[in-house]
Amino acid sequence: MKKSEKNKDMEKLLNLLKFDDKGLIPAIIQDEKSGEVLTLCYMNKDALEKTLEEAKVYVFRRSKGRLMLKGETSGCIQKVKSLAIDCEGNSLLFKVEQVRAACHEGYFTCYFRQVDKKGNIKIKGRRIFNPKEVYESVKRKV
Amino acid sequence: MKKSEKNKDMEKLLNLLKFDDKGLIPAIIQDEKSGEVLTLCYMNKDALEKTLEEAKVYVFRRSKGRLMLKGETSGCIQKVKSLAIDCEGNSLLFKVEQVRAACHEGYFTCYFRQVDKKGNIKIKGRRIFNPKEVYESVKRKV
Repeated sequence: MKKSEKNKDMEKLLNLLKFDDKGLIPAIIQDEKSGEVLTLCYMNKDALEKTLEEAKVYVFRRSKGRLMLKGETSGCIQKVKSLAIDCEGNSLLFKVEQVRAACHEGYFTCYFRQVDKKGNIKIKGRRIFNPKEVYESVKRKV
Repeated sequence: MKKSEKNKDMEKLLNLLKFDDKGLIPAIIQDEKSGEVLTLCYMNKDALEKTLEEAKVYVFRRSKGRLMLKGETSGCIQKVKSLAIDCEGNSLLFKVEQVRAACHEGYFTCYFRQVDKKGNIKIKGRRIFNPKEVYESVKRKV
């Protein structure tokens, strides 16, 4: 495929999607194998393009003002298996292969807290790693 | 359970969640049975409380300035089976029993358009109903 054609397809997609006034669109990340929803993150156009190009999830981290590979620090990257867009072009759904765990608190999914109908919160998820060990060892290496 | 206790738990939950400057929080809706992600919607505090109370998904429709039962017009309501919140309190994840189909275009999920790595879009979802028939028949009844 020629580069010009690739750009045309990508441009069409980017024009169809509704990025908000900060240039972001929400992206739901789902584990392909288990079906578990892992997290909700936000992408700008560059993050979406890079995510599709490299088949790894990139987000735009506003606090750092730059693109970041999801799992850059912890090694817990998300390999993209598929992308779907919703009927309105308001949001993205990525199915991924999750390396180790998605949540910076060490749980497989960020949705590890269950809420009952009265509003009570209980931790229910499985913890895969101890965040102190992972992030401290990274700090030591830096 | 006394009403005062119920309010206390609910207040704790609502304080923990981060509603944006429009008073909204994103809610991912997932079909409990198939694991398919159905849609992403937005709730204010009232919508969340009513959703938990009635075990049916309510959203705050900004264009109408009021709470709306999801599926109010089409009958395609979403019966809540569970709720989880993410590690940061930034978003909600509801597992539901979907009546008929989630998408106003008649597909089971709003994410019926697949995108390949080049940006090409293909329709892949299963269409459950013809939206013209459903919404026209509603208009006729009104």
